[in-house]
Amino acid sequence: MLKKKSKNKIGIFDSGLGGLSVLKHLIFDLPEYEYIYLGDNARLPYGDKSPEKIYEYSKEAMDFLFKKGCQLIIIACNTASAQALARLQKEYLKNEKKDKKILGVIRPLAEYVANNKFSKIGVIGTTSTIKSKAYQIEINKLNPKIKVEEKATPLLVPLIENSWSKKPETKMILKKYLKPLKNKGIKCLILACTHYPLLIKDIQRICGKKILVPDPGKIVSLSLKKYINNHPELNLEKNKTKKITFYTTDEQELFKKLGSKFLSHKIKEIKKATL
Amino acid sequence: MLKKKSKNKIGIFDSGLGGLSVLKHLIFDLPEYEYIYLGDNARLPYGDKSPEKIYEYSKEAMDFLFKKGCQLIIIACNTASAQALARLQKEYLKNEKKDKKILGVIRPLAEYVANNKFSKIGVIGTTSTIKSKAYQIEINKLNPKIKVEEKATPLLVPLIENSWSKKPETKMILKKYLKPLKNKGIKCLILACTHYPLLIKDIQRICGKKILVPDPGKIVSLSLKKYINNHPELNLEKNKTKKITFYTTDEQELFKKLGSKFLSHKIKEIKKATL
Repeated sequence: MLKKKSKNKIGIFDSGLGGLSVLKHLIFDLPEYEYIYLGDNARLPYGDKSPEKIYEYSKEAMDFLFKKGCQLIIIACNTASAQALARLQKEYLKNEKKDKKILGVIRPLAEYVANNKFSKIGVIGTTSTIKSKAYQIEINKLNPKIKVEEKATPLLVPLIENSWSKKPETKMILKKYLKPLKNKGIKCLILACTHYPLLIKDIQRICGKKILVPDPGKIVSLSLKKYINNHPELNLEKNKTKKITFYTTDEQELFKKLGSKFLSHKIKEIKKATL
Repeated sequence: MLKKKSKNKIGIFDSGLGGLSVLKHLIFDLPEYEYIYLGDNARLPYGDKSPEKIYEYSKEAMDFLFKKGCQLIIIACNTASAQALARLQKEYLKNEKKDKKILGVIRPLAEYVANNKFSKIGVIGTTSTIKSKAYQIEINKLNPKIKVEEKATPLLVPLIENSWSKKPETKMILKKYLKPLKNKGIKCLILACTHYPLLIKDIQRICGKKILVPDPGKIVSLSLKKYINNHPELNLEKNKTKKITFYTTDEQELFKKLGSKFLSHKIKEIKKATL
């Protein structure tokens, strides 16, 4: 198996552009691998859809990325990680595709919280992610003593996507969202949506010095580095030059425009994906 | 043809719940007909998707509603009316389904504006509706002298859907959105999104007494009444008791919760639609 010369890639899947805030760190920390990014922009956002639909859409995305030569897929979307990851992992094990791996973004963040032994943490995310209690469950599996306070903050994605990030209304809405969490005495705030890192400076300012607000993309990226080191059976292609292929299920221009903000560098070519 | 005893219904299609703000007026002004409402909640919102995807999704919705026995469909969604209606009307004519009718919400509002001879009007809607310039084109077809000022107001839908309608941040955002239109001296403001009637009181207050803000659902409803009177060949079923069937492509509970706000009365049963 190890000698097989297949060209295995790392897939990044998100309902839209948010996953680019994870990819940004991956290409910095793990520049030697080849990446395929898939954004299901035609059906975004996942945050207000039912668990059944989120599973169905994510399953189609997995099939697409595996067919394109990915061996390992990161579900960068928190909603899909919360609502579909466990079923998808079972599904692919059941079908004896054991050389394929699917990872999410929740476990690495839960491990980070557990390792740092925070007494009480806050989680903000989409309605669906928060409803699922996925962070609370995952964190308390690792350490049942950590208190997890969760709050849905569904306006942040549209504010970011419509370029209102720097306007006073966004800061007011952020303050209203964060106040109850601050009042509860959280020590760390988890940004459980890949869009939120675009507001990280304001969130950190509102939270103050006593609350740590880590960049989730960075934590996921360092966790993946460790995972790859611990799984030498993975046969991932290595390149000297960075190679990333971008796919979207909707119009390429819409993707290009906002995508570079998330990735922090320009996206030249985007291909169309049909799921 | 006229003697055929088929039970023809009126279909209302929207990407989500917004169309209920039109249905609300239809069942008041035309209570004798039978209605089928379809919300494509699994793929909402349409406002930030490409014209191609909007057409494809709307086409599936038309097929679904015609199969369910509708003879006349109102595309209550402004985005779909702007991006897909003309193509859909051609498509169904082409296939010799001439007894089927598809109407949108833009034409009735354009006629209203033209009939009232406003010198300058404003239009607010989703990014996609505004980009299409559909209102401007339709209004200027009827009267090229009317000046049409359009503005995309993409945050209003998430604010309404997340129950922020009555919060000060929403009023601030509304003021920022409406200021440039007020400054341009508009006489009438068209709410080119079926969600916006939920904010009509605040919008009217911010616009002041010199700007008329009509309820688009009412205008569509009165226009349909006239259309039915002018088309005696339509064989629409009449009932003494109101009959409305609701379908959604996503979870029924999500639909029930917000839906009654739009419709102004409780929704008891919702069926699942697969497009």
